[in-house]
Parts: sequence; structure tokens; C-alpha cells
Amino acid sequence: MTISQQIRSTIDSLRAQVAELHAELPRNGLVIWTAGNVSARVPGADLMVIKPSGVSYDELDADAMVVTDLHGNLVEGNHLPSSDTAAAAYVYRHLAHVGGVVHTHSPYATAWSTLGIPVPCVLTMMADEFGGDIPIGPFALIGDDSIGKGIVDTLRGSRSRAVLMANHGPFTIGKDAKDAVKAAVMCEDVCRTVALARQLGVPHPIPQSDIDSLFDRYQNIYGQDGHTDGNS
Amino acid sequence: MTISQQIRSTIDSLRAQVAELHAELPRNGLVIWTAGNVSARVPGADLMVIKPSGVSYDELDADAMVVTDLHGNLVEGNHLPSSDTAAAAYVYRHLAHVGGVVHTHSPYATAWSTLGIPVPCVLTMMADEFGGDIPIGPFALIGDDSIGKGIVDTLRGSRSRAVLMANHGPFTIGKDAKDAVKAAVMCEDVCRTVALARQLGVPHPIPQSDIDSLFDRYQNIYGQDGHTDGNS
Amino acid sequence: MTISQQIRSTIDSLRAQVAELHAELPRNGLVIWTAGNVSARVPGADLMVIKPSGVSYDELDADAMVVTDLHGNLVEGNHLPSSDTAAAAYVYRHLAHVGGVVHTHSPYATAWSTLGIPVPCVLTMMADEFGGDIPIGPFALIGDDSIGKGIVDTLRGSRSRAVLMANHGPFTIGKDAKDAVKAAVMCEDVCRTVALARQLGVPHPIPQSDIDSLFDRYQNIYGQDGHTDGNS
Amino acid sequence: MTISQQIRSTIDSLRAQVAELHAELPRNGLVIWTAGNVSARVPGADLMVIKPSGVSYDELDADAMVVTDLHGNLVEGNHLPSSDTAAAAYVYRHLAHVGGVVHTHSPYATAWSTLGIPVPCVLTMMADEFGGDIPIGPFALIGDDSIGKGIVDTLRGSRSRAVLMANHGPFTIGKDAKDAVKAAVMCEDVCRTVALARQLGVPHPIPQSDIDSLFDRYQNIYGQDGHTDGNS
Repeated sequence: MTISQQIRSTIDSLRAQVAELHAELPRNGLVIWTAGNVSARVPGADLMVIKPSGVSYDELDADAMVVTDLHGNLVEGNHLPSSDTAAAAYVYRHLAHVGGVVHTHSPYATAWSTLGIPVPCVLTMMADEFGGDIPIGPFALIGDDSIGKGIVDTLRGSRSRAVLMANHGPFTIGKDAKDAVKAAVMCEDVCRTVALARQLGVPHPIPQSDIDSLFDRYQNIYGQDGHTDGNS
Repeated sequence: MTISQQIRSTIDSLRAQVAELHAELPRNGLVIWTAGNVSARVPGADLMVIKPSGVSYDELDADAMVVTDLHGNLVEGNHLPSSDTAAAAYVYRHLAHVGGVVHTHSPYATAWSTLGIPVPCVLTMMADEFGGDIPIGPFALIGDDSIGKGIVDTLRGSRSRAVLMANHGPFTIGKDAKDAVKAAVMCEDVCRTVALARQLGVPHPIPQSDIDSLFDRYQNIYGQDGHTDGNS
Repeated sequence: MTISQQIRSTIDSLRAQVAELHAELPRNGLVIWTAGNVSARVPGADLMVIKPSGVSYDELDADAMVVTDLHGNLVEGNHLPSSDTAAAAYVYRHLAHVGGVVHTHSPYATAWSTLGIPVPCVLTMMADEFGGDIPIGPFALIGDDSIGKGIVDTLRGSRSRAVLMANHGPFTIGKDAKDAVKAAVMCEDVCRTVALARQLGVPHPIPQSDIDSLFDRYQNIYGQDGHTDGNS
Repeated sequence: MTISQQIRSTIDSLRAQVAELHAELPRNGLVIWTAGNVSARVPGADLMVIKPSGVSYDELDADAMVVTDLHGNLVEGNHLPSSDTAAAAYVYRHLAHVGGVVHTHSPYATAWSTLGIPVPCVLTMMADEFGGDIPIGPFALIGDDSIGKGIVDTLRGSRSRAVLMANHGPFTIGKDAKDAVKAAVMCEDVCRTVALARQLGVPHPIPQSDIDSLFDRYQNIYGQDGHTDGNS
């Protein structure tokens, strides 16, 4: 595969960004050991940058990242790509607006994933970030396109950037890798708060029209100038 | 707007203080990502210092802070003010004794906020710090004075320096920004302890006369010499 | 009060030790803000070294510690002694074997304190460390000897080095300050584990004869050579 | 006992590795104070390297480690071996494939251990790592071979590398010490997630055939090239 000088430069930059973003996962309590991974689409090419398999978080620098095509075939790298590469690749192939995908086994989101019911939108921050409930995806085994298809089918019908794959854990998407990492952090946070609320009693729902108005405002105000870091 | 030399000096000092106090929010587990903010009234002027919108905690130095008037209009700063500026400004306009306001989405306080019932005063530390139950404010959408009004209306009838705005999260006030940060830290701590107690059984209430006597003593002993750091 | 050269040297050494031990409290999640305190009896004198009131954990060095007599009167120091000085002093006056006292509001122990029932001994580590259930003390207001008396009356009838004062929080004792800090760390840990167990179901009790045999062995093996750091 | 030059070199290397691996225990929230320990079999000799008793985690360097034979008798070291040496030694004597043993009192695993029922396999990560439920071992007192025998008897009939000894805490095994530490980290993580799930409702089970297929794939893919760090 021939890589133009411009794409070369984009890849090098993404290798550094994706490596650095992995530090947010343990820092926010989303992963232990080597679990969890971040990937980024390479704009202008049918390529993605993703975490290598089985490398510890202390060793995850730009050089350790691997590059694959959008079917998960290795293009560059000294390690095997993450075992979740096929799922991320499927998402990039089928959802053109997605620039980043994150997968973790963060505890509260994974706990919700075992129950088969969406996480109810009872927080203004959920309305802002996810536009409603966080949906549950199907149970799917690793090894073919089942996980990727489950993610895409679930998120296509939802405003949410997070899906909890049943008995497995959250996958989040974003316009770029940082946005997908933000969605993973926010997803665990709201899954935790709603779980704590349910232990105390029955959380009051937010009326749908209020959810709509919070989501619309947040997308418009924070979206227009790249301020996707809102809630502050 | 002309700013006298004395106010100039006060603003510069508050910019540094408010920037530094933001570090207490992630350090005490009250915020993730860029959520949460601290503000301070500028004594002697109708101004306040507040966190900018969408700036990460690592970049929050004195220069990054913004100054607004007490209607939230930008007076100084290279960033937009926090999206919670209108709520804080409303509080400063209506409660003259308030010198600092803090807002977070800390998990236990936010969980309690969804239930519609106050957090019951079952801890001596709650009696000391909050003088009774921590009240719940109304559900209010961002965009006008509803949140500010909800905070002020709820806190006017209460000894508490914390209010849990329904389905949203805690706002705390203090005589200055540090005191409001302390209230935010204490609020999450007691919300957590009472939540844990409720999972174990039915916590014993503290008689009202004992709550009164604890609160009175704490205000007098710790208040007289600036020792608002009590409980030790 | 005249202080001999030997006592002078002991006090200086205890000031440093007690200051350093305070770092264990936030490190183990037992305290927030300036809450919590450690004290040590000065062997050979009717004196104790304790944390000053309202000083942040970052500033707690040997010089900041205060020395009081065993009625809580200030003997040395630039700050007021902790507001829990009277309780600690009462313990030193009435329990001759106690060389250290620690008080925190650690969340799980404080949650248990509101329920009026002892924490049941369902863990071998509880049998080792506390010799049975962790008892609840009476509800007592600050300001006279009620707290100190409640601690002493409860611990006199128990093997436990920890008592949970009702609606208030844990006090722990030890042969020296480090031993009391260890008891505070272990107390929160077992209060947490037993709370988690109760959320999952009904923990199996440990027969009294097994509790006795675990406690006896632990005291003898770890006690004989100063190895009070056991459980490893 | 005469130690060949090759075994000497292996022991020195294992002393460093085992010392370093202890840092993973507090880093992952598995131990407090001096509780918990890691050991490694010395390949080619009837020896093991284990943590000394009652030494704090800050002082655990290669020199502090102790060497015992597989009956727990001290061969090298300036400290007594961990009080769990007999249990680890029993495991090494009876399970030839085990190269590392870890014991902690990690909170969620220990909470489950009090209930007398296995932790149900409701997570794909559990199927990958443990091949099914995590079993509960018998209640056993320290002092003879009861704990070691309980571990071996339970794990012999299971794919799991973790056993929760009743009312005591988890023991994990691995092909080497690092693998056993990984199992301890993963064990606490899944015990926590399943506990959180149970507080929210009734987790959906994973069909046995899917558990089998996940476990088989994970062993084969990650096992063939030493990639036991999977789940990423």
C-alpha cells in the first residue's frame, strides 16, 4: 500500500494522539491491566490507528500503535492489533461520521450491560451528552462481525454515542478519538450516578420535551465552535 | 468599564485563588473531564471571577480565568465564561453574604438529587456543617434565571450551604470561594455516607435539639476566628 | 511546666511521628479536608501530642503539632489543639495501656455507626484484628467528657481496638499512634467489606470458637516480636 | 542446601520480579497496610520466593524477599516469611503447573467469599479469564494445611485461576507470578462488576456453550504466543 506524504503525516500525528488518549482510560478508572482500547480513523484513507494487543499502559507510546485497513488487516506495526479491531473497523466502514471508537469494561457501564434494559435518562448531563437513554446492544461473540454489527445497528437508531454490549461492556463513538474517549468517561459517570440513585429509591424521570431541549441546546452551543468539552 | 487599581489587585489575586481551588474538585472526586466550576465575587465591585468554558483542568491557571459582571456579561478573558455563569451571577445578585459559588455533578449528591427528598441529617458532621437536612431544589432548565432562582429560593429558607438541584447536581455557597469548595467536598462526603447507611438499614435520626446545639457550637467556635476548617 | 531533657527528646520524636502518620489518613481514604486526627501519649509524662485544629494536611509537619496535658490544656504549640482533644485525653487518662488514639469520619465505618448495631464478625481479618464484632458507642455531644466516656465504656468490655460512636464516626486505639492508625485503616476496610457482603446477601457467621482461636494466634504470633503489621 | 549457579541466578531474578509485582496490589486497590502477598516457584528447584511478614509496601525490594523450601522452611532471608507461606507451599507441592500464587483481601472478592455461593459467570471477561463461575473454597483456619488443601481441592475441579476462601479472601494461581497477579486483579474487577449488577437487578446468564467458546478462543489465541495479557 502506497501512503502519500500527507497521509503519512496524519498517521504520525494520530499515533501520538491515540497513544496519549489511552492514559485517560486508567486515569478515569475505566480500565485495569491491558483491557480497553482507543482507535482513530485516518481521514482521507481507508485506515485506522489502534492499540496493539497485550501491551501494558506504561509502554503505549506512538511507536507501539498499529495501523490497519478498515477490515482489520495489519498495515504498520510491530505488534498484533487489539482483539477489538474487527469491531472498530466495522463501525468505521458503516458510520461515515465516526472518527474515533473506544471500548472499555468500565464497572458500572458493564454492570448495566448485563440487565438487558437501557440506562434511563434521569440526569441533565445524560440529556446533554447522550440525548436520552443509553441503549443496550445484543449479546455477541468475538470472532466475526457480530459485535461491530451490534454496535452499528444499535447506535443508528439512537442519539447516544455509547452502547452497552450485553454482558460485555461499553463501546463509544465520536467525531474523533478524543470525543469518543470523552463519551466513554461520561458514560461510566452517568451509569454510576444512575446506579447509586437506584439504590436510594426511584429516580424521577425527565420529561421527553426537556430532554430534547437540553440535547438541542448542548449540540448547538457547544457544537458550533468545537467546544465539545461542555458541562462546565 | 473602569477598574480602580485596588480592584485590579483584588481581581488578580482572585484569579489565582479560583484557578488553584479548581484542583480540589478532581482531587476530591467531585468532577470528571471539564465538568464543574468555582467562582468568586469581587468584593467592592459588581464583578465575579469564574472558570472558562471547555478548558481542561490541566490548563486552568490564573490567566485562563474570566471576569464577568453580575449579569454574566464578559468583562475580561480569552474564553467564554462557564455555562453556569448565569446561575452563579443570580446568586451573587440576590444573596449579599455569598462570596463564592461551586457547582459539580459529584456522584452521590447527584444521585440524591434525582429522588425529590432531602438528604436526612443523621450525622454529627451534617449538623455541624449544614445545620440539618440538605435540601433539594426544583428541576430547572439552563438558559434563563430558573437555576439561579431555584438555588436562591431553596437556600433562603435553610441553614444549608448546599442545594441539590433536581436531576442535575449540587450547588454550594460560602463566604468566599474556598468556603464554597469546602461545602462541595463535605456535601459529597455526607451524601455518600448517608447513602451507604441506607443500604445497610435505617439510619437513626438525630434529635432536632441536638442538631441545633451542634450547629450553634460549630458556627461560634469555628466561626469567630476564621477557623471554618473545623471537624478536626 | 518543666520538661526534662529526656521527655523533650521524646516529644520531638513523637511530633515528627504523629505528623507523618497523618499522611496515612487521606492516603487510605479515611478523611477529607482537615477532618480526622491522630494523637500519641508521651510516655513518662502526663502529656499528649495531637493535630492542631483547622490546619490542612499539606501543612502538617512536626512543628505544627501541639502538646497538651491529659485534660486537653495547651502546653506547647502555635495553634489550638484539635476539637477532639478532650475525647483523646479522656481515653489516655482512663486506659493506661493506650498509647495512641485516632478519629476519622471514614465513610463505611460512619455509615455503620448510624444503625445502632455492631458490625458482625464475618471475616477472618476481623477476628485477627478486632477479636469479634466492632461495637457501637453511645450518641454523645461534643463539649464535655461524653465522647471520651462513651469510647472508654464501650472498649473496656471488648477486644476491639475500634468503636463506632453513634451517628458520628470511628475512634480507634493502639499501643502507640501507629498501631491506632493501623486499626483505623483496618476498621474502614472491614466495615466496607461487610457492607458489600450485606448488599449481596446474608454473610455466613464465623463460629465463636474459631474467632477466639484466630484472635489468640494473631496476638501471640504477631504480638511477641512487635510484628503488629500481620495479615500478610 | 547447595544452590547451583543457574538456580542462584534464577532466584535473584525472581526476587526482583516478585518485589516489583507487589506494587500492583495497592495500585489496583487489592490490599491495604501490609496485607496481601505474591510468591513464585523457583523453576528447577524445590524452592519459592515470597514476601516477608510485616514489612511495609514501601520497603519491599529484592533484598527484602525471602526464599523457602516447598514446606515453608526458611532458606534465605532476613525476615520471617509471610504467614500465608504454608498455603502457597501446599499449592506448589500439589499443582505442578502453578508457577505463582497471590493472596489478597480485596473488598469485593472477600465480600463474595462470605456468602457460600460462586460468583456467577455473567460477563464475557469472566468467560475469557476464568472459564465460568469463580468458586468458593471451604472455611479453613490458618496453622496447618487446611487452607492449602482447600485451595487445591477447589481449583482442581475448575477452569478458574481464582478461588474465594470462605470468609477469608481470594487466592489466585498462574503459570508464573505475573499471571497470578493478573488473575487477582481480574478477579476483583469481575467480583465488583457482578456485585454492582446484582444491586441493579438480575444479571442475564451467558449460555454454557458461549462460555466454552469464549474460554477456548482466549486460551488458544492469547495462549499460543505468551499473550496472556489479552482482553484488549
